[in-house]
Amino acid sequence: MATRRFAATDPSLAALYEKLSEASLQPLWELSGLLTPQPVARGVPYRWAGKELRELGSTAGELVPVGRGGDRRVLACCNPGLDGAPYAVSTLWAAVQYLRGFEVAPAHRHTPAALRFIVEGEGVWTLVDGDPLHMGTGDLVLTPSWTFHEHHNPTADPMIWMDVLDLPIVAALDAVFFENGPSEKVDRATAAQSSSEAWFGGGPGLVPVDGPALSARRSPLLAYRWADTERALEGQLAVRGDGHARLRYTDPIRGGDVMPTMRCEMERLRSGTTSAAVRQTGGQVTCVLHGTGRIEVGSGDQLRAFDVEPGDIVAIPSWAPRSVSADTQLDLFTTSDAPVLDALGLFRIETALGATA
Amino acid sequence: MATRRFAATDPSLAALYEKLSEASLQPLWELSGLLTPQPVARGVPYRWAGKELRELGSTAGELVPVGRGGDRRVLACCNPGLDGAPYAVSTLWAAVQYLRGFEVAPAHRHTPAALRFIVEGEGVWTLVDGDPLHMGTGDLVLTPSWTFHEHHNPTADPMIWMDVLDLPIVAALDAVFFENGPSEKVDRATAAQSSSEAWFGGGPGLVPVDGPALSARRSPLLAYRWADTERALEGQLAVRGDGHARLRYTDPIRGGDVMPTMRCEMERLRSGTTSAAVRQTGGQVTCVLHGTGRIEVGSGDQLRAFDVEPGDIVAIPSWAPRSVSADTQLDLFTTSDAPVLDALGLFRIETALGATA
Amino acid sequence: MATRRFAATDPSLAALYEKLSEASLQPLWELSGLLTPQPVARGVPYRWAGKELRELGSTAGELVPVGRGGDRRVLACCNPGLDGAPYAVSTLWAAVQYLRGFEVAPAHRHTPAALRFIVEGEGVWTLVDGDPLHMGTGDLVLTPSWTFHEHHNPTADPMIWMDVLDLPIVAALDAVFFENGPSEKVDRATAAQSSSEAWFGGGPGLVPVDGPALSARRSPLLAYRWADTERALEGQLAVRGDGHARLRYTDPIRGGDVMPTMRCEMERLRSGTTSAAVRQTGGQVTCVLHGTGRIEVGSGDQLRAFDVEPGDIVAIPSWAPRSVSADTQLDLFTTSDAPVLDALGLFRIETALGATA
Amino acid sequence: MATRRFAATDPSLAALYEKLSEASLQPLWELSGLLTPQPVARGVPYRWAGKELRELGSTAGELVPVGRGGDRRVLACCNPGLDGAPYAVSTLWAAVQYLRGFEVAPAHRHTPAALRFIVEGEGVWTLVDGDPLHMGTGDLVLTPSWTFHEHHNPTADPMIWMDVLDLPIVAALDAVFFENGPSEKVDRATAAQSSSEAWFGGGPGLVPVDGPALSARRSPLLAYRWADTERALEGQLAVRGDGHARLRYTDPIRGGDVMPTMRCEMERLRSGTTSAAVRQTGGQVTCVLHGTGRIEVGSGDQLRAFDVEPGDIVAIPSWAPRSVSADTQLDLFTTSDAPVLDALGLFRIETALGATA
Repeated sequence: MATRRFAATDPSLAALYEKLSEASLQPLWELSGLLTPQPVARGVPYRWAGKELRELGSTAGELVPVGRGGDRRVLACCNPGLDGAPYAVSTLWAAVQYLRGFEVAPAHRHTPAALRFIVEGEGVWTLVDGDPLHMGTGDLVLTPSWTFHEHHNPTADPMIWMDVLDLPIVAALDAVFFENGPSEKVDRATAAQSSSEAWFGGGPGLVPVDGPALSARRSPLLAYRWADTERALEGQLAVRGDGHARLRYTDPIRGGDVMPTMRCEMERLRSGTTSAAVRQTGGQVTCVLHGTGRIEVGSGDQLRAFDVEPGDIVAIPSWAPRSVSADTQLDLFTTSDAPVLDALGLFRIETALGATA
Repeated sequence: MATRRFAATDPSLAALYEKLSEASLQPLWELSGLLTPQPVARGVPYRWAGKELRELGSTAGELVPVGRGGDRRVLACCNPGLDGAPYAVSTLWAAVQYLRGFEVAPAHRHTPAALRFIVEGEGVWTLVDGDPLHMGTGDLVLTPSWTFHEHHNPTADPMIWMDVLDLPIVAALDAVFFENGPSEKVDRATAAQSSSEAWFGGGPGLVPVDGPALSARRSPLLAYRWADTERALEGQLAVRGDGHARLRYTDPIRGGDVMPTMRCEMERLRSGTTSAAVRQTGGQVTCVLHGTGRIEVGSGDQLRAFDVEPGDIVAIPSWAPRSVSADTQLDLFTTSDAPVLDALGLFRIETALGATA
Repeated sequence: MATRRFAATDPSLAALYEKLSEASLQPLWELSGLLTPQPVARGVPYRWAGKELRELGSTAGELVPVGRGGDRRVLACCNPGLDGAPYAVSTLWAAVQYLRGFEVAPAHRHTPAALRFIVEGEGVWTLVDGDPLHMGTGDLVLTPSWTFHEHHNPTADPMIWMDVLDLPIVAALDAVFFENGPSEKVDRATAAQSSSEAWFGGGPGLVPVDGPALSARRSPLLAYRWADTERALEGQLAVRGDGHARLRYTDPIRGGDVMPTMRCEMERLRSGTTSAAVRQTGGQVTCVLHGTGRIEVGSGDQLRAFDVEPGDIVAIPSWAPRSVSADTQLDLFTTSDAPVLDALGLFRIETALGATA
Repeated sequence: MATRRFAATDPSLAALYEKLSEASLQPLWELSGLLTPQPVARGVPYRWAGKELRELGSTAGELVPVGRGGDRRVLACCNPGLDGAPYAVSTLWAAVQYLRGFEVAPAHRHTPAALRFIVEGEGVWTLVDGDPLHMGTGDLVLTPSWTFHEHHNPTADPMIWMDVLDLPIVAALDAVFFENGPSEKVDRATAAQSSSEAWFGGGPGLVPVDGPALSARRSPLLAYRWADTERALEGQLAVRGDGHARLRYTDPIRGGDVMPTMRCEMERLRSGTTSAAVRQTGGQVTCVLHGTGRIEVGSGDQLRAFDVEPGDIVAIPSWAPRSVSADTQLDLFTTSDAPVLDALGLFRIETALGATA
């Protein structure tokens, strides 16, 4: 039951340190690194190549049944700076999930919230509390905290997508709960339109007067379709001069981020456009949807430059500047823990860093 | 400077009453009707026929120039129960506005907020703080409090639409400010899409990260298009069994009503459907967009039944039950002062009144 | 059922006007005064003298039983500019209520909210939903919308106090409900401390973890005691240099005004201090608690100057500048409808008008 | 740059695992313990004895200068279940700080927020952004995120108190910033009343109309005095029958917790009273102010029972039930991370566990 013991050459101090250790106390003056002038992010700038993710996902599909371990065939992006923890940045889990034709990943729920973003392909349905959501290219699909969710593939073709979870945050708060689905029977429901979208996806600002009860802290709209997203990007580009549109996915009923722990954004950079470097507290994960270009992350010795293409996943640690230049038109989906930092009064952003190019 | 004097046969009381009058005081015990068990609404159930509104608007168009008096050619719906006040219900101004081909109603602004709802026709642009918003059938266009607004008709054809304002409320609060547009010069701008819609109308829940500054208390989206509205109605009808969809127009960024004083809703009743009677505190104005049917308003001696058709405007006074039955598919646009009553803790609604048919 | 008819010499126009009248319509271009550059307040600057209010209250106490008409012996301040309406300003009822020794004003409730402010005396208890609140000099006691309230005087001495209600607002919204107390039996409960204060009045920021359920929109603390108020005024004066402290009474649990329709403030001006003129939209009622001085209200032809003493009630109409100079130390209690204007986006205030002295 | 490698006997799987490792990926199906049915709290129920904390603090006072390491003479409570991390529970730092007579702990600021709770003694002033706050028995003093704070002891006597910080949370979010005070010069200001209390501490619900600007997310009142706290406790006990009062320290202006990351509560149990067991997600730290009794934490094998006395600090890990029985009247101060869990939709509480006695 003793804690860490500190050494001292002075005998009285050494005696004190021994007593402190026995009493489960530590002397602050012997600790270091607790309070740093700026965040010393755990994790490093990193990129997982989309091509490799697809290949390894496919190999896993051949070798590993979906039911084995966590009921999901998932490859977790592990930031090399995190000492083997299976997290893309210190606060976010990012992974690719691979489902072969006719496979089912059965229903469960957990307090960590998840989102799915699809870079390529379609044909899998995710059931969220029984509501079937089709997954297609460019779509964002939410499985909020403590909602049952299941994935099934009624087609013959495999499909791969990106999962992002707030697992590191929920784990750090000792608040993980998990439960398997209500039964062994597998729901293979599909629908042309989800109930969620029928109620809440009609158009901007149009909400039901007497619709389903709303959950307290997350969007009732569970799928954001690429067609809408692209129209919104183009609308914005039409009225701004810089060729760089950025939109946030929000709760269409009450405003605010889609879920209390993860912010989701999509940006489109016209070909030839470069964005200024921005840094913010908290981690981010960017996934390339369309186009090629260059993402620079970090500064000084930590600066890394990634030539990106569709499917690439890039980790941006806390307070690391990020800038982007687009060789072709570039669409980037980014998730961050910004709502957490914002709620706690810890969100800082610097946007005036200038282009790093 | 004396106030109302009350009579009394008792000489001491008569003397007191005289002194009270001289002191600008009134004895509560001689007043009556101040506190009633239920609201005794000023105003009565009433219907203005769309056909008549169009005819009289057209006649006014021939006889009266647009520039004369208030810079608008407007016919105000005057509830017969309001002692000549030009209001449709005690808290809402409703009117039709008529603009001939090539006419312009010049820019001004006022603290009373306004909305425009178009039953038929198209071709006029409303400029709100310089942003050109096209007006077409089924569209809702907002001109929030203290925004400059101008209407112009670049076509050869006349157009008519409904205006609703919160004028009675702003007047009751002695808070009316008015200002003419910045200059005599007339802005005849048009645009395929308004800036407001380009920024904020992309899709449900999709909002700009770094868009224009938001006003504190009203929607930045100034036009709600019929195509979106109808899709939302049909989406809702697909997942509910009662053939009666109701949606509310809201601020797509922060949620809540489009303006702090007026709630806007659209409902679609499938042919043959009847809605239960509902009553709520505060006044409402309903405008028929499509279809025919019957709207019953009030109860007991005050019960009125209106066989309605497109363009009809119906006044529903505070606490009067309203029920609807649809002969054909019926689309109804309704404005109320519910956000005011809600903000003040005075909103009551009874929905279990049963069908009045 | 015809509305106001307008005259025209042109025969076609006259014919149109007749048809409009028959159709319950009015031509906007014949209306005037609807939209004014600035608020043209109904009501005028006015002062009711405390001395006179006490005398007339006392006379009413001798002549009129408390049970007659509205169950209250109340003299309503009637602004001479309001055409006989029994309101102090267009949006607020203000009155004095007089209760003789051992009298009871029985329980009732209504949607208009009320507050009591006591200039002098003590000994009456107000029961709010059964909770006995003692009333003493300088106290503010709330009877929020739809709470049962009763006043009783267990002492031999009469007592007088000021009532302010939001009645004109609730009436303008056609939202008045009224109900008599549950029975004829009279509750004469007293208590050293009300339950409301025991739960919510312990100290700034100290709130019960598992206390009574809160009402949605108003303070659970129903009495604000003068001892606390004075300490807060003196605390503030100790850290500001201008000799003019102003504090607002707020909901101690959620912040914000004590009730959704009325703002309550107390100010203390050190002897010899003059406040700059301030004007705001909406009406205000000021009651002098201690001291003498001069309150100027209005501007230009409407400017009125009142030499005030304790018990005086002063009406400040919308947008009329108000400034104060203190001959002795002066304590002023002020109620306004500012929360209403604020909620509706109609609150404007100008504080840079300069001292009017 | 390789991540953790997993073993497999099947050669193809082994080859895949090698490739995954090279690609910084981990197979979910080989991970375990990520999603548990209930929280498996890091940290154990634990108690640091007040007597020992005072003795060791005193010894540290003799041996260690205040300026050495972090500028504070602080002994951190290290939960034996946290692998040597200097935290009382997984999300909270708790410690005792010891300042000898005439010593100064110089100014600095950091994004982790801190609070001070004083079990015994007085005489030290904490300056928060220059405002001198006296520290006395039973007081709660806040040093919110990024406020400069300094402690100085103008008396000859030493003083000890408890510090609690949200450091583990801020560190987990990679959001630690730190800055030393503006200069070397030491501010030894004192004041009978802090500016914070003069503005915001006047009484429940009494707030300045035109006071200092408010920070976005934390209480402007920086000290909560024991006299107020005790009066609130006794007020509450007078109107509840169970002999167990609980109050929360909140922002007196806007409501809500005093800081966005830490909830502060005080409870008083009458002698002989036992509280039912309660468990909640997130960690808690309880400090005994007055009285003796028994605190039971945990359940099953993890159940620990502590006989407590003033100055004892008890760690309650996430989801561990806690119950209290009071031998004498018992006053307990408790800090938790509940606002964090609440903001993220992760707060769960079970209050119906029944008394564990």
